[in-house]
Amino acid sequence: MSESRDLFSSDFCLAILGGGQLGKMMLYQTRQWDLRTKVMDASPEAPSRLACNEFVIGDLMDYDAVMAFGKDADLLTIEIENVNVEALEDLQNKGVEVFPQPKALRIIQNKAQQKLFYTDNNIPTAPFSRFAYTSEIEDSLANGGLAFPFVWKSARFGYDGQGVKIVREAADLEGLPNVECIAESLIPFTHELAVIVSRNVQGEVKTYPVVEMEFHPEANQVEYVLCPARIPEELSQKAQDIALKVSQGLGIVGLLAVEMFLTESGEILVNESAPRPHNSGHYSIEGSYTDQFEQHLRAILGLPLGRTDSKVPAVMVNLVGAEGHTGDVRYEGLDEILAMPGVSPHIYGKRKTRPFRKMGHVTIADASLEEARATAARVKSVIRVHAKSNK
Amino acid sequence: MSESRDLFSSDFCLAILGGGQLGKMMLYQTRQWDLRTKVMDASPEAPSRLACNEFVIGDLMDYDAVMAFGKDADLLTIEIENVNVEALEDLQNKGVEVFPQPKALRIIQNKAQQKLFYTDNNIPTAPFSRFAYTSEIEDSLANGGLAFPFVWKSARFGYDGQGVKIVREAADLEGLPNVECIAESLIPFTHELAVIVSRNVQGEVKTYPVVEMEFHPEANQVEYVLCPARIPEELSQKAQDIALKVSQGLGIVGLLAVEMFLTESGEILVNESAPRPHNSGHYSIEGSYTDQFEQHLRAILGLPLGRTDSKVPAVMVNLVGAEGHTGDVRYEGLDEILAMPGVSPHIYGKRKTRPFRKMGHVTIADASLEEARATAARVKSVIRVHAKSNK
Repeated sequence: MSESRDLFSSDFCLAILGGGQLGKMMLYQTRQWDLRTKVMDASPEAPSRLACNEFVIGDLMDYDAVMAFGKDADLLTIEIENVNVEALEDLQNKGVEVFPQPKALRIIQNKAQQKLFYTDNNIPTAPFSRFAYTSEIEDSLANGGLAFPFVWKSARFGYDGQGVKIVREAADLEGLPNVECIAESLIPFTHELAVIVSRNVQGEVKTYPVVEMEFHPEANQVEYVLCPARIPEELSQKAQDIALKVSQGLGIVGLLAVEMFLTESGEILVNESAPRPHNSGHYSIEGSYTDQFEQHLRAILGLPLGRTDSKVPAVMVNLVGAEGHTGDVRYEGLDEILAMPGVSPHIYGKRKTRPFRKMGHVTIADASLEEARATAARVKSVIRVHAKSNK
Repeated sequence: MSESRDLFSSDFCLAILGGGQLGKMMLYQTRQWDLRTKVMDASPEAPSRLACNEFVIGDLMDYDAVMAFGKDADLLTIEIENVNVEALEDLQNKGVEVFPQPKALRIIQNKAQQKLFYTDNNIPTAPFSRFAYTSEIEDSLANGGLAFPFVWKSARFGYDGQGVKIVREAADLEGLPNVECIAESLIPFTHELAVIVSRNVQGEVKTYPVVEMEFHPEANQVEYVLCPARIPEELSQKAQDIALKVSQGLGIVGLLAVEMFLTESGEILVNESAPRPHNSGHYSIEGSYTDQFEQHLRAILGLPLGRTDSKVPAVMVNLVGAEGHTGDVRYEGLDEILAMPGVSPHIYGKRKTRPFRKMGHVTIADASLEEARATAARVKSVIRVHAKSNK
């Protein structure tokens, strides 16, 4: 491969399923490289509607829509895992390159299968029970097979904090959908960590530094991501080793973001994995030599992977819709945060806000992680994602 | 201004004259902020044809085209200085914000006026004579008003190294267009330097570090840009002070890139200035806390300016069309350079290459400037911008 393929100067077309913020940020890189792209999303207002060469409106779960979209692509990738996997498999059988591989996507799409994969591969994870229907949980509680408290997770469609609930008493089960699910032990943890592993078509693997996440207690969404995590080097190494083991087990080409708990007793347990660019890696746009979106493209295009280390420490703040605000979005305080050092806002371009909806993020880069974290708190205290009509 | 204007969530529209690589890189930032944009360029294949909300085909020098394009914009800016200034002035009079200001653009558009501005403002610059027509140079040579060698520069349209010629003997004057021009003393210099100054609507000013440029001897185009320049701190300070003086004299809102010679005797002389993002600032995308395109937008939108210091040193290599190659472009060696540490290629997306045409650039970021420069030399030795049909 001493000669470049014609990726950068030809009709090569990368097709991306999903036009949300992750897809939009992937397009930053396809524009930089002048790669031809097409994107499919159900919403004509999707953040990726600009900057791709072709934008197609279609349902990602619809077999026919995915087949029609993917059949003339050279390479198909995803920015969200909830897509029609049967179509991906059939496209792969017809000769379209599909990364991440549909086989791995199948395992990840179903949280019960994902958990079974961890236990089958000796990857540490919280104890759990699988149920074909939420209604079966009551029997298990009655016969002592399960005890409060536990975390209920629907097996499918868990994206963005939906489909997860902490169950402390029987009443908490009311209103939950009667679907395939797992009940997972509630783990007392001191940190939530994440590691992104990249693997390219040729099998080259590079691991990003461990990041530390601080969650919003109610919304179950990340509030701050810090890179590097403020944990001892030996724990960082352990977290990276575990993430690497998950990535190897799944054989993922592209990125795999592995979220983990660091427990009070110093154990590291895998929470869940996502085979794509991830919220925990947004800091990399400003912080890393190679950002996660570029790395994803390098990996699936069979290009050499880039450096995964950081130029400077960085802290990321999610911009989520304020409680009590639903409607056309208005950002308050952007002028103020832009006056703070090293602040880079990313506005995803969603027209409507609603409570806790991910509307953007802000990265604060600084040679000092402590300074960056202090600035992040000031950003958080000033910025507001409101609805215009609530004014 | 404690409350953000509705830039980020409204119908505010930024209009950009010119859709070349500078406009394209400006759009990286408008996408990040979800700013609504429209772009005008004469070529339907212009690099900015994607990622703007609206793309208009039109001649930037045509009064009516510029008026029609700008009249409903909230703010008009440029990515190239060769635009119809009369139209900009009339738009400004009709209430459209135009930055950089047409008055300053008028001075910069004409190299004779630009040089007069330097001398009028006690800004050091090489001695020169102005001629209404190139043919007048012969008289001046005959009567001893001018002597070989000198640098001939057409007063207008000097973009991209065209319109400049070193004249060592009478024969070198043959074939030059008979236009308004200057004859400038040929200065023996040790370094070419550049400084970008940013000023926002409110008058806040921030200066980028001094960069050092290495030129291709034949093409008169930059081959490498190094940040920071490898010169003593006192000279850096002097160069920044001079650039600041140029910016203040012109009162430019936006960016002003000031190119300078460091002479053998330690003098710093201004060569020329450009009121926009500049090739010498491309390194800032990877190297700086705030890249020049973001800073330009912050400045003209009346937002606080960002940090101008660097996260890490960086070296930029221009990708220009190889000699002897004209036609549909093909990049050779991209796979190889992507395997080198800290390498970020930018492919502008021009379909046709020709000798010395700017087709892209590559930035190499590294904690060590020496390492970055060594990698840059390896990049330069591998990458080739060829035409497909020459194969």
